[in-house]
Amino acid sequence: MRIDIITVLPELLKSPFDASILKRAIDKDLVSVHFHNLRDYSTNNYKTVDDYQFGGGAGMVMMIEPIDKCIRKLKAQRNYDEVIYMTPDGVTLDQGIANSLSLYKNLIILCGHYKGVDQRVRDLFVTKEISIGDYVLSGGELGAAVLCDAIIRLIPGVLNDETSALTDSFQDDLLAPPVYTRPADYKGHKVPEILLSGNFPKIEQWREEQAFQRTKERRPDLLDKNNL
Amino acid sequence: MRIDIITVLPELLKSPFDASILKRAIDKDLVSVHFHNLRDYSTNNYKTVDDYQFGGGAGMVMMIEPIDKCIRKLKAQRNYDEVIYMTPDGVTLDQGIANSLSLYKNLIILCGHYKGVDQRVRDLFVTKEISIGDYVLSGGELGAAVLCDAIIRLIPGVLNDETSALTDSFQDDLLAPPVYTRPADYKGHKVPEILLSGNFPKIEQWREEQAFQRTKERRPDLLDKNNL
Repeated sequence: MRIDIITVLPELLKSPFDASILKRAIDKDLVSVHFHNLRDYSTNNYKTVDDYQFGGGAGMVMMIEPIDKCIRKLKAQRNYDEVIYMTPDGVTLDQGIANSLSLYKNLIILCGHYKGVDQRVRDLFVTKEISIGDYVLSGGELGAAVLCDAIIRLIPGVLNDETSALTDSFQDDLLAPPVYTRPADYKGHKVPEILLSGNFPKIEQWREEQAFQRTKERRPDLLDKNNL
Repeated sequence: MRIDIITVLPELLKSPFDASILKRAIDKDLVSVHFHNLRDYSTNNYKTVDDYQFGGGAGMVMMIEPIDKCIRKLKAQRNYDEVIYMTPDGVTLDQGIANSLSLYKNLIILCGHYKGVDQRVRDLFVTKEISIGDYVLSGGELGAAVLCDAIIRLIPGVLNDETSALTDSFQDDLLAPPVYTRPADYKGHKVPEILLSGNFPKIEQWREEQAFQRTKERRPDLLDKNNL
């Protein structure tokens, strides 16, 4: 998979892609991630990429022309499955969207900043608008990093068995059961006995019950979704 | 405000706090953010902070003792309003939660990694569990960065007028209206005439209608929430 990220703040995105699972996926050549500094596509000498909004009001708007130039250059080189715009009014990211995006070959992710992009960018170039949640961030960069992490860890070969994605929360619309590790007794706080029993069928049953119970208490909406 | 982030991957968190609005807030002394590498609190020579889970199964679990040591050290120095654990089965972050957390003085944010932390950490030390959305990430670090960004930009003095938070999506449970900037005509794609009219009361009315319309189309659940 190839991901091209268009941003005014490529430096903000650096460390998340230089560590942990994203770095491993890049090192293994399972994904390549390319940052494009929108200022390099500015059409004036001041490298500006934003301007005041028509009709007045606080907040700058990202101009259409630099974005158009950058997207056109990328599209001349290869076909893209989606041009994604990170925006709080997009479709809310969930595990299903992450699963389906993880199957694609080439993605462009456009990070909004300031008050967002000129509406014509959305009308003309963007094929999918995604929000990571119902809260406002300073820009789309962290959203893009979150989206990449959610997608990239699903690409076959990225996670090793130790970190298998199959038992994660949301993959079966149930939250994960509680987990425990050593010591079995920490200052009098003990691990549930069943987990020390060695009776694996019973442990499996306990985990399923706990996952269901936790989902019922914390996120009954997930159960409704599947009529469980 | 002071935020202490406990993590096994402090290096992953570096660049988001070195750029843009988070950096500005830190430079202005409106917030201080401190990273604590959990490995420094390991109780063995190998600096391990995780172990196999009781009862078997894929995925490592973060041990209680290093986390206990780190939190105890911090709590000995000051009082904390909340000890927040980033986890997909926590309460889903929204603008209301971000607003209320932005009023606090001292926060600890614990980043989960691998299969998460030993359940006893959650039972004994954690006061609030937060998820940034219904998807699984490699670890809690990006979630912590998102949470910090959502909170810190609300602290008075962090944003200048240009980036005022008051007209953002979600603050009034409406999505933001479309925005436009120059040029008024881009290759035949024109800005709505009303925005060029100079008639500010009419522009305001148009924006309100657009915000309502967009919310109705994209996120009718936000309108239901307030019986709009």
